[in-house]
Amino acid sequence: VTAVPRCVSQIDTPAAIVDADVLEQNIGRMAHLATKAGVDLRPHVKTHKIPEIAHLQLEAGARGITVAKLGEAEVMVESGVDDIFVAYPIVGETKLDRLCRLADLVEVRVAADSWAVLEGISAAAVRHRLRIRVRLELDTGMGRCGLQSTEQAVELALRMSDLPGVELCGVMGFSGQSYAAANSGEIVEIARAEGAQVEETAHRLRELGLDAAEVSVGSTPTSQYASLMAGVTEIRPGTYVFSDRTMVGLGWGDFDDCALSVLTTVVSRPTPNRAVLDVGSKGLTNDPSPMQGFGTVQDNPDIKLSFLSEEHGVAWLPDGVRIQVGSRLRVIPNHACGTVNMFDHVYVVRGDNVLDRWDVAARGRMQ
Amino acid sequence: VTAVPRCVSQIDTPAAIVDADVLEQNIGRMAHLATKAGVDLRPHVKTHKIPEIAHLQLEAGARGITVAKLGEAEVMVESGVDDIFVAYPIVGETKLDRLCRLADLVEVRVAADSWAVLEGISAAAVRHRLRIRVRLELDTGMGRCGLQSTEQAVELALRMSDLPGVELCGVMGFSGQSYAAANSGEIVEIARAEGAQVEETAHRLRELGLDAAEVSVGSTPTSQYASLMAGVTEIRPGTYVFSDRTMVGLGWGDFDDCALSVLTTVVSRPTPNRAVLDVGSKGLTNDPSPMQGFGTVQDNPDIKLSFLSEEHGVAWLPDGVRIQVGSRLRVIPNHACGTVNMFDHVYVVRGDNVLDRWDVAARGRMQ
Repeated sequence: VTAVPRCVSQIDTPAAIVDADVLEQNIGRMAHLATKAGVDLRPHVKTHKIPEIAHLQLEAGARGITVAKLGEAEVMVESGVDDIFVAYPIVGETKLDRLCRLADLVEVRVAADSWAVLEGISAAAVRHRLRIRVRLELDTGMGRCGLQSTEQAVELALRMSDLPGVELCGVMGFSGQSYAAANSGEIVEIARAEGAQVEETAHRLRELGLDAAEVSVGSTPTSQYASLMAGVTEIRPGTYVFSDRTMVGLGWGDFDDCALSVLTTVVSRPTPNRAVLDVGSKGLTNDPSPMQGFGTVQDNPDIKLSFLSEEHGVAWLPDGVRIQVGSRLRVIPNHACGTVNMFDHVYVVRGDNVLDRWDVAARGRMQ
Repeated sequence: VTAVPRCVSQIDTPAAIVDADVLEQNIGRMAHLATKAGVDLRPHVKTHKIPEIAHLQLEAGARGITVAKLGEAEVMVESGVDDIFVAYPIVGETKLDRLCRLADLVEVRVAADSWAVLEGISAAAVRHRLRIRVRLELDTGMGRCGLQSTEQAVELALRMSDLPGVELCGVMGFSGQSYAAANSGEIVEIARAEGAQVEETAHRLRELGLDAAEVSVGSTPTSQYASLMAGVTEIRPGTYVFSDRTMVGLGWGDFDDCALSVLTTVVSRPTPNRAVLDVGSKGLTNDPSPMQGFGTVQDNPDIKLSFLSEEHGVAWLPDGVRIQVGSRLRVIPNHACGTVNMFDHVYVVRGDNVLDRWDVAARGRMQ
């Protein structure tokens, strides 16, 4: 383990940089939105995979956290997080045992969208002498996981009421299609539709005497309209903590509101209008954005990051841009969640000062 | 560290799987191609980042290895590799010191395409009382790094001859545009043009009394035509060791010749024609391929992996495919190099037997 450099100019490249002030601003902004809308905030930590950031979110008022993978949950529990929603269908005995070990230690909820998944959770819970709280997942238009209708949800919920070891506690939706929205009007429509769908289902379940008190929705773009979603009790945004080029494209603040950037060095200037950076798809990822290209250079948005190979970023420079071999740039990535996942750690900075280096502790914990 | 499972059915998902027989076949095939063409083979280890595989390549006759990053080189040197070409412009004092420490331990060559980079290497070599061998990089049509003409190369080579601590030993090209070729005829043309260009430059340098004995070209697609490239002395293919969906699309063998796959579990069957897998872009990457979609399912190529979120792979199923929650599939990725880089380790299998688990030791060594 090497010493943490004191200032940004001492950080070698490529490196992931987190601006502490912007991070805190973003965390505060979403906490405020949740409070104003009267909903719980349960941020999705897949965006950062960093316990220190999860604790900042909790200190700012988050009720608990959301994870996609048990490996993420385990890392967060080790760091002291005690309230976790596993927003993923858990399948297979090894994973179900791990889920139960977590549920033995902390408050755990888990998603399910099929009888097969519920049976697995039930059997594991019985083995471990536990009861596990389950939220039924609805497909709110993304076309990924989730029950396809209120009728399907009602049928599964009724059938589930006889299963030992599991108890229904609510429903969840996720409208990730909001990341592809053309404008904020479309995001509002997606948010309204998602809210209406999950609340309608929860209402039907309650009419049948079932427990569906928790009505949870996701995604940073739709979460900002939580106040328009009557009946929703919880939001699970992830990306907001950093923001990124995709979020800026959707109108969620500006590049100044992006807490994550990749510090990179120019290693080649083969032609007057071309510079090659020392970060490529193994740092910035090929994750797409509604904007063209693979990143925006801070303080120099006219530079076009036109293509990435694995370890090279090829930038087109407008005439007159003064960039030489050895120049260092900071690039806002298309997708913060994908980018952080490529780095072992992030440097936390305020201006030119490096405050800390945080491990991306749940990186590689894919199971 | 957990025990290595004995059979594939005991491996939890998602997991990277390497078929030992196909791996050995691919390593042997390229070694044979190099021998037949009378050129040295110096595989690019960025594809796997795994010392065990580098040693298999060396045992099969590779002269040394190629790396993009010093971190990769350091991991390989620790494992006993003693001949390394750093095919990347090394910039900045920290990295240049690391380059010199490597050159003190093993045989090292490094690429350069500018006076700024050469000056840096020279100053570091003088500090460390070393001489470092340099290959000049030519842009052979990819539009990434590299000198833009023979004239530029000649000018830089002549100027370099006065620099202490560095000695010219050859030239290199890389025609990564071959991965986007429409057919094998186009790959042949790219290979011929690359070979002609690097040899022409090397010839001019030699006429001036300079040392340009080493004439090195890259990329798996063009390396197979090494015998058509008169004067070329070395090939640096990377992807061949695994092959992938992109290579199959280019006609480099079939899916049976792909050594790397991702083992994944079906976690949701929301509609009759949709299955959701437990691997997404944080496993398979969003790296593109000439084929549509994000992977090919082994033994079931009609399944379309139509989109990835970070931890979900959404597959379209033709009517009648029998896949349930809990079914396990093996997916050939679009891009082997990007995919391995997402995993901490790979499982080495022969049929249903797990022979070993190898760490992706250079993963995260991005500097």
